[in-house]
Amino acid sequence: MTEPLRLGIAGLGTVGIGIVRIVQKHGALLETRAGRPIVISAVSARSRSKNRGVDLSGYAWEDDPVTLAQRPDVDVFIEVMGGHDGPAKHATEAAIKAGKDVVTANKALMAIHGQALAEMAEEAGLVIRFEAAVAGGIPVVKALTEGLAGNAITRVIGVMNGSCNYILTRMEDAGLSYDAVFDEANQLGYLEADPELDVGGIDAGHKLALLSAIAFATQVDFDAVELEGIGSITIEDIHQAADMGYKIKLLGVAQMTGRGLEQRMSPCLVPDTSPLGQLQGGTNMVVLEGDSVGQIVLRGPGAGEGPTASAVMGDVMDIARGARISTFGQPARTLRKARAARAAVAAPYYLRMLLLDKPGALAKVAHALGEAGISIDRMRQYDHHDITAPVLIVTHKTTRTALDAALADFKATGVVSGTPVAIRIEAV
Amino acid sequence: MTEPLRLGIAGLGTVGIGIVRIVQKHGALLETRAGRPIVISAVSARSRSKNRGVDLSGYAWEDDPVTLAQRPDVDVFIEVMGGHDGPAKHATEAAIKAGKDVVTANKALMAIHGQALAEMAEEAGLVIRFEAAVAGGIPVVKALTEGLAGNAITRVIGVMNGSCNYILTRMEDAGLSYDAVFDEANQLGYLEADPELDVGGIDAGHKLALLSAIAFATQVDFDAVELEGIGSITIEDIHQAADMGYKIKLLGVAQMTGRGLEQRMSPCLVPDTSPLGQLQGGTNMVVLEGDSVGQIVLRGPGAGEGPTASAVMGDVMDIARGARISTFGQPARTLRKARAARAAVAAPYYLRMLLLDKPGALAKVAHALGEAGISIDRMRQYDHHDITAPVLIVTHKTTRTALDAALADFKATGVVSGTPVAIRIEAV
Repeated sequence: MTEPLRLGIAGLGTVGIGIVRIVQKHGALLETRAGRPIVISAVSARSRSKNRGVDLSGYAWEDDPVTLAQRPDVDVFIEVMGGHDGPAKHATEAAIKAGKDVVTANKALMAIHGQALAEMAEEAGLVIRFEAAVAGGIPVVKALTEGLAGNAITRVIGVMNGSCNYILTRMEDAGLSYDAVFDEANQLGYLEADPELDVGGIDAGHKLALLSAIAFATQVDFDAVELEGIGSITIEDIHQAADMGYKIKLLGVAQMTGRGLEQRMSPCLVPDTSPLGQLQGGTNMVVLEGDSVGQIVLRGPGAGEGPTASAVMGDVMDIARGARISTFGQPARTLRKARAARAAVAAPYYLRMLLLDKPGALAKVAHALGEAGISIDRMRQYDHHDITAPVLIVTHKTTRTALDAALADFKATGVVSGTPVAIRIEAV
Repeated sequence: MTEPLRLGIAGLGTVGIGIVRIVQKHGALLETRAGRPIVISAVSARSRSKNRGVDLSGYAWEDDPVTLAQRPDVDVFIEVMGGHDGPAKHATEAAIKAGKDVVTANKALMAIHGQALAEMAEEAGLVIRFEAAVAGGIPVVKALTEGLAGNAITRVIGVMNGSCNYILTRMEDAGLSYDAVFDEANQLGYLEADPELDVGGIDAGHKLALLSAIAFATQVDFDAVELEGIGSITIEDIHQAADMGYKIKLLGVAQMTGRGLEQRMSPCLVPDTSPLGQLQGGTNMVVLEGDSVGQIVLRGPGAGEGPTASAVMGDVMDIARGARISTFGQPARTLRKARAARAAVAAPYYLRMLLLDKPGALAKVAHALGEAGISIDRMRQYDHHDITAPVLIVTHKTTRTALDAALADFKATGVVSGTPVAIRIEAV
């Protein structure tokens, strides 16, 4: 196979331009590696007149990505527009109907419509690849789908949103509040137009749902991801966690339990000496655990023009070389619908609360925990602020259900002011 | 393609048995992922009667791996015997001549004969894959060859020998001498039958040479790797390095320079806060740097039954799925012979020496450095031992050539006792 592989690129934002740059700069290198030239036939974006700093004059222009997807001179449709409905979805479907392979960087599209799109593509003998949708430049989809294909995967863990990790590490380094660092990050352009996609864990939840599907041979089910953002994390929690040898991370965890598939994206404490604990700033890290391989840790840039374009090109090169792996590692029609297991796996928890200065207050809280079957590993009470005193408790392993029962009981004690903070401590 | 993929396994040591275990345990999972059954047709090893703890009765037995390689019921020849000449080489060649794809875990075979074997296989339309030969269970060959295929690779760095990393971290943790920890590791069975393969950097050098070939599109050239083992590292060096914020690692570095391809496997200082600096015990880590992706770090078990078998099965699954990538990422006949550049890239160095207690001794050493064009970043002189005083110098960036000139001059000063220790400080 020595004919050129012809790309149609829909979307000329950061990622689309990154892809154009790689194809223009590395034509010879790509051709030698793939055994055939990689060329761009056509591009599409909202504004044709915008100056994007690259020469697009050699490529056909399409205003409509659907028309681009249907062009006879396009072999691979590259979807880097974003958005889980509207043009991205329509154009991807049009590409499949027109017999094109698809490479996408769109985590929302794949997390929500991935099962249907993969079935549609596979029935037509086509592939959809989405390496760039998960953890930017880290080839984690490939590692999981191909490199570890001989393993039963036991757990996937990861820090998959660089903006959240930036915020949490910056809070600690500068001793700043969440709100102050959030504003700073927003001004620096580190956050999505809708910041809740980042700090609410939605973006990272999309990525986790995609990795879960591959790891556990289940239909991607973003709605089953237990989502909790980082907005409630205070600088006090970060300091207390540090005192005890932990870091707070927005951590994705997926594992198959006896009760079903557990998928969580939530703040967790991890040991500060672990690779995840040591992860600073905007970098991503994914930990893959398999029954034969043990633990593999992958670390790298989770976003940005170069890294994301690199991941797209990895997928393009696979297609150019004739490697046609199923989207989720096995035929989409063989993926099971997973039963969602919420909070199935027990863990120790970090609790922080304000106790009213009343006789026996601490005893009442300890009693509520005991009634819920939760034993205490460590407890500290700090100096009084006015009429309340901060109390910090680390429990032994407990289920979230038992913990929620205890937290409800705390209210009934009448000695807890406000809502206690509860953060899971994850073994990594 | 739904016919079974039939394996012939030559070598039933740890890795071979690990492969048998995966195929027996995960038959259904492998079949679903590959779209076809993965079966073992035949096995071969030195002793047929040895009890290996797995049931081999369903497989044909061959005393001779060459005969195994030629069996008509074998599609993929799996070479996990070891040794770069003799049976491993003969059987691999026989397999290719008989039209079989090859998967090998044999780093020495591939580092020494990889170019010839890859050319032979590719002329016949066959593939040789060697993921298990580099960094055990970490899918680094795949990441470099496929995931980062859109990048010009700028540097490959890694800790690729778990035994050496175990020795160095154990020396530091326990405050023990190299000899003491070496004996301990040897008794625990952590070292090769010929320990020089580990501590001399040869095993890790093989792995580096293989990654270099992929990264820089050059013919694998193990002889061009500058090799230096860890035998001269003292507990004093480890302590001094730690004082200054560094760890000592047996570090492989490959990069293309204006003067040619530099490949080094030698002890280096790396910042203790870097991922490489934080790597403890027998784990491996490879850092891949590309012009688009930036830096990717891969960490995982570098040896052992499960991890190595996992890597072999990753290659087998690729073949089963019809992914047929060139051994070194592009056709072997297109790989260039690289010019070897020794010590082309300048770096700061750590120097430790014993100065005789003579007036002006330190000045003479400083003068020798100055004459060689080397400036001093930091210098410490410690309390006298008898008639000598330990002196520690960190230089600014210099070439190895300039440093060697200074070290030669040190002798002429008559104030340096014994041979100074010089360890490169690598920016990671």
